[in-house]
Order: sequence, then C-alpha cells, then structure tokens
Amino acid sequence: MPENQRELSPLFREEARPEDREAVGRLVRATGFFSEEEAEIAEELIEERLAQGDASGYFFLFAEAGNRLLGYACFGPIPGSVHSFDLYWIAVSPGEQGRGIGRLLMAAAERLMAKRGARRIYADTSSRPQYEPTRSFYLACGYRKAAFLNDFYAPGDGKVIFVKALS
Amino acid sequence: MPENQRELSPLFREEARPEDREAVGRLVRATGFFSEEEAEIAEELIEERLAQGDASGYFFLFAEAGNRLLGYACFGPIPGSVHSFDLYWIAVSPGEQGRGIGRLLMAAAERLMAKRGARRIYADTSSRPQYEPTRSFYLACGYRKAAFLNDFYAPGDGKVIFVKALS
Repeated sequence: MPENQRELSPLFREEARPEDREAVGRLVRATGFFSEEEAEIAEELIEERLAQGDASGYFFLFAEAGNRLLGYACFGPIPGSVHSFDLYWIAVSPGEQGRGIGRLLMAAAERLMAKRGARRIYADTSSRPQYEPTRSFYLACGYRKAAFLNDFYAPGDGKVIFVKALS
Repeated sequence: MPENQRELSPLFREEARPEDREAVGRLVRATGFFSEEEAEIAEELIEERLAQGDASGYFFLFAEAGNRLLGYACFGPIPGSVHSFDLYWIAVSPGEQGRGIGRLLMAAAERLMAKRGARRIYADTSSRPQYEPTRSFYLACGYRKAAFLNDFYAPGDGKVIFVKALS
C-alpha cells in the first residue's frame, strides 16, 4: 500500500494515554485557532480523563497514523441534561487538514455519543471572521446555528451555538 | 431590634466553610427547583471551592441570619471569555422567599462579579412552566432573554439563556 493511501485511513482510538497530553497541546497550538488558555484547558482535560476515566465526563477520540496524532475530538454529556452532549473540542493537525479527517472524526464521535445516549449535540464557536472555516465545517456536518450570544467572549467576539439533532 | 426586622437584614459572607456543603444541599433540595443530580453538583462545587480556593473558578455568596442559611449564590468567570461571568446558582430557602433576599443576593453577587472584571453575566434556566418564577426573577433583576435552546435538557425542556450587561 503506498504511503499516502495508508495515511488517508486514520486509525481511531478512544483510550487516552499520558503522552496524549503533550501531543494534544502541540496539535491545538499548531492550528492557530486556540488561545494559550484554551490549549492549557485541552491538556488538562486529558489529565482529568486519565485520572477519573468516564467519571471525568470527558470522552476522547484520537485519529492517528502510526504514532502521529492527526486530530482528535473531546466530548461528553451535559450535566443536567438527559440526552444532550457537548462537543468540547475537535481539531485536525494543520498539515492534515483538507483531507476529510475532520469529517471522519466528527462522524465517529457522533456514533460514540449516540451509543452513550446522545440525541442532541452542541458545539460552540466564536463569531470572529477567523472562525468562519469552523462554522462552515459545522454546517457541512449537518449542524445548524441555534443561538448567538453577542460579545460573549470579548467585545465584538460573540458565541455561536450549533446543534445537531441525531435521528 | 425586633426579631423579624433583624431577619430582614441578612449578613453576607463570601468565604465558604465545610458546613456549607450540607446546608447548601439541604437548601437547594428544599426549594424543589433542582433535581437530585443538580443538588449533588451544588454540594460538589462547595467542595471544589474549599479544596482549590479562587483557582476552582467558583465564587460564593451566602446570606445568613445567625447560623441559618437564607440563600446563596455561586458564580464565576467563564473560561475563554475576557469579561463574561456565569451565575451558576442562586437559591433562597423556601421559608425566606418573597422578602427580597434573592434580589439582595443578586445585587451583591453582581457587585462582586463586577469587582472581578465582569461586564456580562449569564444565567441559564429551564423553559418548563415550573421555572416561570425563576425567569420572572431574572427579568425583574434586569436580565434579558438572549437565547433559547429547545429540547436542551430533555424533550420539551429547553434552556433559556439570560444575560445582563453591567454598565
């Protein structure tokens, strides 16, 4: 099998490992879409997962080729809701973008959430122009804009809440 | 000073104490407005506050008369936002409701949030008929409905997001 064909079929792994902390931190910083504060939160969520397992409320999906992390998603049930899940993070390494890995990750993450009882999946993002690709990605994945909270993150930087009802 | 007049002037305390865990759990259960899961979360937030202090991200305000807990509020900065705070909890003991304690708690909590940099305060509640008093309370306190997420908590049970911009 040619090298590039192998790379087009990432392997998915649910179990978090200690080395994911550094790999996830590096990946989200490389995308340029997350602040340093957010990158640190991404790392902390891996630690919470490692320390508490399912009780952490954070579930992961890692897309890998060999030992390389291509992308990952982090999601979990929303406390107080019977069937809503939050897609906290989804990110693909800049060098791997545009090849459908995000869509594969999303579809696989949605299946895992559905297995755990999800009927509605929420995903938040910023209204800033920089996040137009993120918003287009959610729309392309079948999400719709459910709400807009102006100035949520900062003056002029609102929160857009997307939702997808699973059938 | 007559007893009832003293009771109309609750004392406010910010510092959480170990005994608040049980008192808060009892109070929120007594209101009938919170599920058992939510009551347990309310208790856990006290523990997180006691264990981690400000780093927990949870700040409290307790309204007391003598050793009796009349009500309390829990709030904190929203991670990733520069100036938005979440009012996670506000509850008044059933026997003390209708005397303005909620309004006093809200005003004092808003002042504490403003001191910590809050420019916008968010508060979520359910769209169920049972929570009409809660929604009226937020409106009376100067909050406006910013978003509605249908079926968020359960089928037929949506989330209403209120916001107040501090001037």
